[in-house]
Amino acid sequence: MQLDQEIIQRVNQMKEDLIARRRYLHRHPEPGWTEFRTAALAAAELERLGYEVKTGAEAVARDSMMGLPPESVLQEAQARAIREGAPEPWVNRMTGGLTGVVATLRFPQPGPVVGLRFDMDANDVSETADASHVPNQQGFASQHPGAMHACGHDGHTTAGLAVAKVLAGLREQLAGTVKLVFQPAEEGVRGARAMVDRGVVDDVDYMLGAHFGFQMKETGSVACNVTGFLATSKFDARFTGRPSHAGAAPEAGRNALLAAACAALNLHAIPRHSGGVSRINVGVLEAGSGRNVTADKALIKLETRGGTSEIDRFMGAEARRVIEAAARMYGVTVAIEQVGGAAGGENSPALAAFIEKRAKSLGIFRKIADRCDFGASEDYAYFMERVQQRGGQAAYILVGADLAAGHHDSHFNFDEAALPNAVTLLATAAAGLLLGEKV
Amino acid sequence: MQLDQEIIQRVNQMKEDLIARRRYLHRHPEPGWTEFRTAALAAAELERLGYEVKTGAEAVARDSMMGLPPESVLQEAQARAIREGAPEPWVNRMTGGLTGVVATLRFPQPGPVVGLRFDMDANDVSETADASHVPNQQGFASQHPGAMHACGHDGHTTAGLAVAKVLAGLREQLAGTVKLVFQPAEEGVRGARAMVDRGVVDDVDYMLGAHFGFQMKETGSVACNVTGFLATSKFDARFTGRPSHAGAAPEAGRNALLAAACAALNLHAIPRHSGGVSRINVGVLEAGSGRNVTADKALIKLETRGGTSEIDRFMGAEARRVIEAAARMYGVTVAIEQVGGAAGGENSPALAAFIEKRAKSLGIFRKIADRCDFGASEDYAYFMERVQQRGGQAAYILVGADLAAGHHDSHFNFDEAALPNAVTLLATAAAGLLLGEKV
Amino acid sequence: MQLDQEIIQRVNQMKEDLIARRRYLHRHPEPGWTEFRTAALAAAELERLGYEVKTGAEAVARDSMMGLPPESVLQEAQARAIREGAPEPWVNRMTGGLTGVVATLRFPQPGPVVGLRFDMDANDVSETADASHVPNQQGFASQHPGAMHACGHDGHTTAGLAVAKVLAGLREQLAGTVKLVFQPAEEGVRGARAMVDRGVVDDVDYMLGAHFGFQMKETGSVACNVTGFLATSKFDARFTGRPSHAGAAPEAGRNALLAAACAALNLHAIPRHSGGVSRINVGVLEAGSGRNVTADKALIKLETRGGTSEIDRFMGAEARRVIEAAARMYGVTVAIEQVGGAAGGENSPALAAFIEKRAKSLGIFRKIADRCDFGASEDYAYFMERVQQRGGQAAYILVGADLAAGHHDSHFNFDEAALPNAVTLLATAAAGLLLGEKV
Amino acid sequence: MQLDQEIIQRVNQMKEDLIARRRYLHRHPEPGWTEFRTAALAAAELERLGYEVKTGAEAVARDSMMGLPPESVLQEAQARAIREGAPEPWVNRMTGGLTGVVATLRFPQPGPVVGLRFDMDANDVSETADASHVPNQQGFASQHPGAMHACGHDGHTTAGLAVAKVLAGLREQLAGTVKLVFQPAEEGVRGARAMVDRGVVDDVDYMLGAHFGFQMKETGSVACNVTGFLATSKFDARFTGRPSHAGAAPEAGRNALLAAACAALNLHAIPRHSGGVSRINVGVLEAGSGRNVTADKALIKLETRGGTSEIDRFMGAEARRVIEAAARMYGVTVAIEQVGGAAGGENSPALAAFIEKRAKSLGIFRKIADRCDFGASEDYAYFMERVQQRGGQAAYILVGADLAAGHHDSHFNFDEAALPNAVTLLATAAAGLLLGEKV
Repeated sequence: MQLDQEIIQRVNQMKEDLIARRRYLHRHPEPGWTEFRTAALAAAELERLGYEVKTGAEAVARDSMMGLPPESVLQEAQARAIREGAPEPWVNRMTGGLTGVVATLRFPQPGPVVGLRFDMDANDVSETADASHVPNQQGFASQHPGAMHACGHDGHTTAGLAVAKVLAGLREQLAGTVKLVFQPAEEGVRGARAMVDRGVVDDVDYMLGAHFGFQMKETGSVACNVTGFLATSKFDARFTGRPSHAGAAPEAGRNALLAAACAALNLHAIPRHSGGVSRINVGVLEAGSGRNVTADKALIKLETRGGTSEIDRFMGAEARRVIEAAARMYGVTVAIEQVGGAAGGENSPALAAFIEKRAKSLGIFRKIADRCDFGASEDYAYFMERVQQRGGQAAYILVGADLAAGHHDSHFNFDEAALPNAVTLLATAAAGLLLGEKV
Repeated sequence: MQLDQEIIQRVNQMKEDLIARRRYLHRHPEPGWTEFRTAALAAAELERLGYEVKTGAEAVARDSMMGLPPESVLQEAQARAIREGAPEPWVNRMTGGLTGVVATLRFPQPGPVVGLRFDMDANDVSETADASHVPNQQGFASQHPGAMHACGHDGHTTAGLAVAKVLAGLREQLAGTVKLVFQPAEEGVRGARAMVDRGVVDDVDYMLGAHFGFQMKETGSVACNVTGFLATSKFDARFTGRPSHAGAAPEAGRNALLAAACAALNLHAIPRHSGGVSRINVGVLEAGSGRNVTADKALIKLETRGGTSEIDRFMGAEARRVIEAAARMYGVTVAIEQVGGAAGGENSPALAAFIEKRAKSLGIFRKIADRCDFGASEDYAYFMERVQQRGGQAAYILVGADLAAGHHDSHFNFDEAALPNAVTLLATAAAGLLLGEKV
Repeated sequence: MQLDQEIIQRVNQMKEDLIARRRYLHRHPEPGWTEFRTAALAAAELERLGYEVKTGAEAVARDSMMGLPPESVLQEAQARAIREGAPEPWVNRMTGGLTGVVATLRFPQPGPVVGLRFDMDANDVSETADASHVPNQQGFASQHPGAMHACGHDGHTTAGLAVAKVLAGLREQLAGTVKLVFQPAEEGVRGARAMVDRGVVDDVDYMLGAHFGFQMKETGSVACNVTGFLATSKFDARFTGRPSHAGAAPEAGRNALLAAACAALNLHAIPRHSGGVSRINVGVLEAGSGRNVTADKALIKLETRGGTSEIDRFMGAEARRVIEAAARMYGVTVAIEQVGGAAGGENSPALAAFIEKRAKSLGIFRKIADRCDFGASEDYAYFMERVQQRGGQAAYILVGADLAAGHHDSHFNFDEAALPNAVTLLATAAAGLLLGEKV
Repeated sequence: MQLDQEIIQRVNQMKEDLIARRRYLHRHPEPGWTEFRTAALAAAELERLGYEVKTGAEAVARDSMMGLPPESVLQEAQARAIREGAPEPWVNRMTGGLTGVVATLRFPQPGPVVGLRFDMDANDVSETADASHVPNQQGFASQHPGAMHACGHDGHTTAGLAVAKVLAGLREQLAGTVKLVFQPAEEGVRGARAMVDRGVVDDVDYMLGAHFGFQMKETGSVACNVTGFLATSKFDARFTGRPSHAGAAPEAGRNALLAAACAALNLHAIPRHSGGVSRINVGVLEAGSGRNVTADKALIKLETRGGTSEIDRFMGAEARRVIEAAARMYGVTVAIEQVGGAAGGENSPALAAFIEKRAKSLGIFRKIADRCDFGASEDYAYFMERVQQRGGQAAYILVGADLAAGHHDSHFNFDEAALPNAVTLLATAAAGLLLGEKV
């Protein structure tokens, strides 16, 4: 408890730094797998604080990366990061979009391994030009056209570096090991799997993650008992047929448009699942070139969801079969690519209770939600699932913040007064866990 | 020409016999592959006339039989044929539905091989009880419930036996070889392929076939130049899935009903063919057992057609692919059986002209159609196609007859005055061909 | 408590009668809306016991009857009931299938209205001829081919008449009013709505219902806290198009088969519902007459379900729109008939607790389930919903019984030792409620 | 015949002008409804030659214009035309895309009305940069990015103005009336209907039209007996639904993507037509915005075709019904716009024979096709149909030309030596008709 007070004081002294760093990051948003500047700045800072830092192929399993942008986009983003002041050696180690960062600090005494995950990527959203939008008023709006931190990950990265600093500052008083995971490409749920598959949390006993906002739309509120992570899979399917003149030789064509249309309808007819929530959506269908040509190209973008990872796997397997059969039906070929995914799950109850108790004792939260049914997808669930499967515990907290607009909206902004709340709760919970408090 | 006159006289003397035999056959209609009585009576008669007669596996390729009824139906029909006076040894040679009969007569002088085909089977139609229906008035209506000669094949068989008698009677004056083919199961276009595949017309130089009625609805008319035989294929597809309780475990089912429905829709979307007429029809769909059970069984009955055999093959191949893909889409299995088929084609123009010229010279026809676009399917076209492919010529004639109602109608009847017309034209044409008249 | 003991004794003395009556009913099973004999026997017995008895249009709202059999079936069943000894005046009052019976007894003292519902109909199942099947061994198997009490409603009717007798016997000691509802056509969830719409429970304060078996598969067990009634709707849709020859005039047809197939696929693509469980199943599709005819008739049988009545209404409204649009798409007409339906819902918690407490105190149950998620549909839920909507409380109990086979199986039989358990619990609970015990 | 020789001489003297004008037009291609420069130059020239010239609303029925580009595109094209030297007063009369021009010349003597139609628009194709491409070699390639005369309409306009000059030069020797119709927007078959509906050929006795190339791929060849114009209709259908989060509230969405997919499949299942060729093609489908959003927008682009106008009307009516029903099925709205169309038909046989005879007598053609089955769609067929319906005769000729690549290919070019052939044949045929030669 005394340690908690010390942490509160340290965080109080960092308040202005927190805001400054968040704004610095907000000005340079980097969408998934292009977080070269953000990740390199984080890596350099973490190294400075004494952490052992891994990035590139040491932090990310290349084969598990999903939804990677084209090579040209990666190269351009890498060059821009350097132009915009990122430490070049770090940037170079991330070539190919391997922008994950893992920072480890081993404390003097033996103890458990505590992991914390922070996501770094921005959205493919153009920030509003509205003068009343706070980032415009205060001069920290996005300088990258088409990209914006519209989900608060600038705040997450900021909080992560602050937690790093607090724990490093308490180095002599702590035990065990802390592992800070800075994850790329959470948007589209593309990045977590590649870090989990790289094994970065395989030794973790307690895993923590956090997000500003969502159901907690008020600064000073917090939810520690989060359930209902929907497992999800994101697929792109590209059909390739054979064009023909629709008037002169319809029988010579291989109709990719009809294959895609047939797939779309039958995908939505995948049976409901008695085991819990299931979802399917073909959100995009683009096919054909000309009215009088049998369409030889078609693309569908779809997602499945499940109340559990198992239900989502059922949906995904059904979806693949339907898509492949639709292609066969029309004599066309199809390439299916998984471009995103997240596990399902929920907080380990004991760890959730542990954090909630601390949230109450800290005295900085006005409102503590009993339980929060997340009802959406977050690829943090991959970390959670892996740690839980290996016998550890994992939890995710929602840190309340007043929001200017909904997540992913071009007017999104969150109340920076929420930053110290997050840092304090994560740092005190981590410290307690490291010191072996009973969960 | 003198021979023609002699034939006309002989046929004139047979008029009453023709009517008597036609009525005898009409009373005992036998649907496809169960023509045990009809075929055995024909075989015995042909043998009596001096023909070499083949039946059973010598006349029919077992593996090419399509749409065979269940074994129990065959056995029952065979027993009935014997009960109803069919010569038992002949019936026994036809066990298994191999009811085709081929009768060959070699004349003293060398010459071409002339084939003639006659179909023997009845329809699955119950003859009307209407007192004004001629077969009821005259007491020769069907004695087999559910079966009726509603397409005139009783007349065809009658005519075939009469042609056999005429030609045998002129034995000394003729040359070459005549082959009379009595075919089962023309309804549903199921029988011809099995006789063609057995090779029964492989040595034929000129092939003739005939039908009463259709576009020629007047006694005394005839069409010799028939075109537009539509090739066709008939398929049954049976889907087998897995039942499940639709409320309690929808995901455990494998939905045969949806597979069949999906197949039906996409079958109708097979592209049109620039090479000519194409058709597709799923005429029957039966699926499922209970409202609250995922349907585990489904059956579709379909047919394709094509202006040419090639187009029908395209349609058939597309149809198979669509059906198989629909099964895969729903994770069910499917068994596709071809239960019928006919080739496309048209009369050999020179042979058609040859017959037309004779029809004119005989003086027994009041009206000779210029040309007749058949626009339907007849499995005689398989004989035609085979003979034409091997360098021979083939033709099909429509012999006009007043009709009481349309073909396959329970009120169908044809004017028996058309019988001698058919016999005369076929016998004189055959005689001319056998004697080497220029085609 | 003393009254409970008295009830236990009275029931103990009825044991043989219970078995005899149940077997008497079992031998004469009557499917939905044809329960003329069962209902007339019950009505006569209830009248004998002093109840005011209503049936026919006084007990059933004709316009709300669902899934009524054809008139000829009703007439035949009515005649059979009389042949088999049913009291004719009562049978006559039920003409048209209005076989519901409501029996009311007003006790001397004022008090609440307590309703109890019992269902009477049999299944369309042929009872097994297996010699080891108890009804065969003991000589009480179904004497009506194709019909069987395979769900235990013979037991329900028996229990209802026994409860009637017990309560009538305690007339002087009770208060308030008891209403016994004998419902037809529970199978297919067809009958409850018509009695509810007739207003028979509009004045009920406490509503009780019961079923043998289901999740409680052991004699001596009971579940009083039942949740998860799935609302459901059953529909038949009949499409009528226009036939045409599929080869000669495909454009002249109006394809009912494709309309039905299109409906089936798109029905299964109705979106999932975020508010809870939703279900859809097209369990039967029958279309077309001949392979070469554009199908002019099609029938689909489907059901929807919902975790709540509201979700089922959503599903039903979507289903109607899809079916009607599919008909329009193919230029055919469609007639949609609702042939069954049930509400969703769950036991009123306080009433459930009240009954559970009594079940414990009676000492006749060895095992009392904490809670039972029904997960299926029962049209008792209509009674429950109506009573709850009007401010009353309702509950449904599952009375455990050893089962010879699953419900609706031709080998179904239940342990008759469960009969007194059901009677005792229902009668004691009803008596307590009538006497104003605190719920 | 003497007149024909004079015409041949006059055309011979115009050869260089023909090439120069064609190249001048080729450099400034204007896609459908934006032919402001082309049409204004033509109008001015025709006026100069003494014709009475109508344009704008006098030549085009505004409500019948199909596939009109957005207003902004029209305005920009109009401004460009003036910048590029088009006579401003004429351009102004064409505001709104009413770029059709009708030029009439009445000769001294009474006689028939002879119409000729020339199309003016270019393709939405970028001309190849290939140095070997003749327009590049000779410096007359398109100066308008994204537009190109890749179908030879530059040649048609050139020929039309030359015919105008020839006939005007022979004014004193001719009779009757000549009407020259310069039509916009033939590509996409968008323009003819609006001129026909304006009545511009209602008084025409003989109608002539021509095209370079197609089946006649050799300079010096010609086809005068053209049959098999496919009637066609082009539609765009825009579906508007309601977006919803596919994970959180799928039931709240109205799925425009599925409506479009359902429409596409069922459109292709419109039955084949026994009356002749029918076609349907959904060539483009674009739907949805994001993977996790119920798609609220969808667009399909389709076309129907028919061997006759009647069959195409059948297809179009079926298509509209299918699209509207698909929208209803998914609870979305749809707006269907016809953006193009052409009639079916064939040359009037007598007029075709008349022209063919002249083609033979002129001695300028090396090869005259017997008959040409066009097998494609041209909105000239609307002119043909109108004239034929009102008792006149109409014909279309294909003037052979060596082609560098297929029509609409970015490498398309035609042999300019074909220009005088077209002018001579059209002018001599028109002159003969005007002078009352027997058809």
